[in-house]
Amino acid sequence: MAGMARVRPLSGFPEWTPADRVVEAQVIDSLKEVFRLHGFAEIETRVVETLERLAGKSEAAKEIYTLGRLNAEPDSEAKLGLHFDLTVPFARYTEEFQNELAFPFRRFQIQKVWRGERPQEGRFREFYQADIDIVGRENLPAHLEVEVAVVMARALASLPLPGVTMHVNNRQLVEGFYRGVGIDDVAGALRSVDKLDKIGPDGVRAELTEKGVAETAADAILELARINAGDGSFATAIEDLWATTTTIEDVADAEALLKDGIASLVALVEGVNAAVPGTAVADLRIARGLDYYTGSVYETFLEGHEDLGSICSGGRYDSLVAGGGFPGVGMSIGVSRLISRMLGAGLASATRGVPSAVLVAVTDEAHRAASAVIADRLRARGIACEVSPTAAKFGKQIQYADRRSIPFVWFPDAGEGGDGEVKDIRSGDQVPADADAWEPPAADARPGIVRA
Amino acid sequence: MAGMARVRPLSGFPEWTPADRVVEAQVIDSLKEVFRLHGFAEIETRVVETLERLAGKSEAAKEIYTLGRLNAEPDSEAKLGLHFDLTVPFARYTEEFQNELAFPFRRFQIQKVWRGERPQEGRFREFYQADIDIVGRENLPAHLEVEVAVVMARALASLPLPGVTMHVNNRQLVEGFYRGVGIDDVAGALRSVDKLDKIGPDGVRAELTEKGVAETAADAILELARINAGDGSFATAIEDLWATTTTIEDVADAEALLKDGIASLVALVEGVNAAVPGTAVADLRIARGLDYYTGSVYETFLEGHEDLGSICSGGRYDSLVAGGGFPGVGMSIGVSRLISRMLGAGLASATRGVPSAVLVAVTDEAHRAASAVIADRLRARGIACEVSPTAAKFGKQIQYADRRSIPFVWFPDAGEGGDGEVKDIRSGDQVPADADAWEPPAADARPGIVRA
Repeated sequence: MAGMARVRPLSGFPEWTPADRVVEAQVIDSLKEVFRLHGFAEIETRVVETLERLAGKSEAAKEIYTLGRLNAEPDSEAKLGLHFDLTVPFARYTEEFQNELAFPFRRFQIQKVWRGERPQEGRFREFYQADIDIVGRENLPAHLEVEVAVVMARALASLPLPGVTMHVNNRQLVEGFYRGVGIDDVAGALRSVDKLDKIGPDGVRAELTEKGVAETAADAILELARINAGDGSFATAIEDLWATTTTIEDVADAEALLKDGIASLVALVEGVNAAVPGTAVADLRIARGLDYYTGSVYETFLEGHEDLGSICSGGRYDSLVAGGGFPGVGMSIGVSRLISRMLGAGLASATRGVPSAVLVAVTDEAHRAASAVIADRLRARGIACEVSPTAAKFGKQIQYADRRSIPFVWFPDAGEGGDGEVKDIRSGDQVPADADAWEPPAADARPGIVRA
Repeated sequence: MAGMARVRPLSGFPEWTPADRVVEAQVIDSLKEVFRLHGFAEIETRVVETLERLAGKSEAAKEIYTLGRLNAEPDSEAKLGLHFDLTVPFARYTEEFQNELAFPFRRFQIQKVWRGERPQEGRFREFYQADIDIVGRENLPAHLEVEVAVVMARALASLPLPGVTMHVNNRQLVEGFYRGVGIDDVAGALRSVDKLDKIGPDGVRAELTEKGVAETAADAILELARINAGDGSFATAIEDLWATTTTIEDVADAEALLKDGIASLVALVEGVNAAVPGTAVADLRIARGLDYYTGSVYETFLEGHEDLGSICSGGRYDSLVAGGGFPGVGMSIGVSRLISRMLGAGLASATRGVPSAVLVAVTDEAHRAASAVIADRLRARGIACEVSPTAAKFGKQIQYADRRSIPFVWFPDAGEGGDGEVKDIRSGDQVPADADAWEPPAADARPGIVRA
């Protein structure tokens, strides 16, 4: 729309108008409030990490932005790059501050991350993520895997979004089942199943058999991937499938894993749905590529916007840091992609881009101070306002308020001793008012979000 | 004291413990609230700018962090760097979004910036700045120079700081005076006067005479630099000095500039001190190196911490963008340096590092759900809480709360139908309580800041 601007946006680096920033800031504030209510402490990490630490996750290496200096001096500094997620810095922070943290440590972190991806719709090079994690020092109770999902379900429910569905699975369950049908390379098989959306069941079957998985085993795990349910009823379906497909002789260990996994997944689905009804679905096809996860895994989709992919993902892991230790569970929301969709698809917009609820008009420059006093009396009660920049005719001052979407104009009464009158410039209603008592309607007090 | 940590901090890139982050976050929230009340809209810009745009300010060029890619491909991308202040991105944003902004545009922006400076005490390579600006399209009323200073004085007064003193001057006043004593290169002379603190009056005089300034003129402007006052009384002192030192024949233009400047500076000092008494001082030695400023200039010092240098500076400028246009006035707080000093000098600390006011104890794992229900009833009224991660003996659960600085522990009553009892673990007081009615004392509801 900025047809006359001499500068153009930089692809992949989104920026918002002040009104759209209101939406983004309120989304972030809503998330923070839910996290706060559940006892998560906020941390912020520096945006730079050493390349050594960043490049450890090899698949991300090609997307890392490195830092240099314009006038490069003989380089005595550590090689640095911008973080591409909030997990790498959180792991480093936890190690670095471990003696000052009380475990299980519950933290949230909402910051920008940078990835040198090829820009395309909904893929940004600079974007906000919102992460929560609970990490223990040596162990972590399994019920926290439910709690993290509940907190994220509530966080998403607090936003002006269509419904979300959280698809959950359990790695122990999957591992037990896969082992039971004779698959040794569970991680390899999972990576193939993770491609179900892209290459379909036939493609996955072909990949699996290529990897040496028996056809009956491939069929069995594809059958498992078809199971899903919004309650604990999936347990019987899995047990029935297990009874007919398990092939190995000594099933005890695999079965124990499977049963633990089933119990955890039942608790997870039921726990999340008790807190935010209709949100969680046990979905046995959810694999999540990372080897890192060892228990619950989560992916979340926005109804009607499934093309976005998962908007909130994560899982249970055994060790946050490379050296071992700090078992935890965490989830991450891709905030900027979500905001971009909300704005782009018209799911939400701001009632106005300025905080001011009131423009205090100025009768003439000699009485500017009187207008300032009224503004300060309103501010003392938390009402955002501004004093007209000019003492133009009142009609012009009203136009100015209108152009800025300020709903009320206050006309100070220089003559009669009162505070003057306040006009709702949308309805035209104008009433005498006391600057120590008048309140705007709640909907006008601050910029709000309008849902589609 | 992370004595056992295997990772070390990166010099110049500060990070805080969760408790110290509480201080930082509350400082930022306090600033935001004052800006909001005065009608400033928040914007955020991407952290990257093209090098072409960044390097325009030549003296900053050596501090710019450039971005590269780990696996450098044939580079079709714009050369990018991290912004080193919030003025360069704000100027670009204003140009880019000009058709979507209503002028005068009042914006605040609180973001990190990066400078590859040599790290030293209080000098960071990654740090927060908080900027406010009001920019017009073609013109900007002078009273906004007072308003911006008032807003910043109030913003600083909202923080847990010792007193601040805002030293203000006016470029027109200085230019009129300098011209009146026969100085042609006003900017050059100002750059010398700006070194008063470093090289003293004799050093400045030597520099000035070296630049061809007559000795009497040098003496006159050093005399001017000695004038300061917390009210409008400086005006007479300047007029007296002017009467005895002006040397040029046709003084009319210079005198007009001087008088305009004096009137503006009187309005500024009196306006700020009317709003926040005792804050502003007209200080005729304040030069501020940048040629950019054309009217009011501001520097702010923290009492007892003058060694920090100015914590909040800015001024009036004729054009925000290189091509001209967008006259404005703005000020910037060096937030991270301020926080670092507040924490380092013990001026402020957080009452706790976790949001939770209450730990809801768990009687045994079979009753975890009952504890979760109590927690949710507290959360429904905005009380942050967490459920004990284990059903250990109550003594252990109290220890856990204590280690996390959570002030209250709630013991659900599984047997008698009530909600149980809540204990203030500091005093040991324990009382029966209703989870739909009990409130923590206001001071305990959220983590707060304790002043020294």
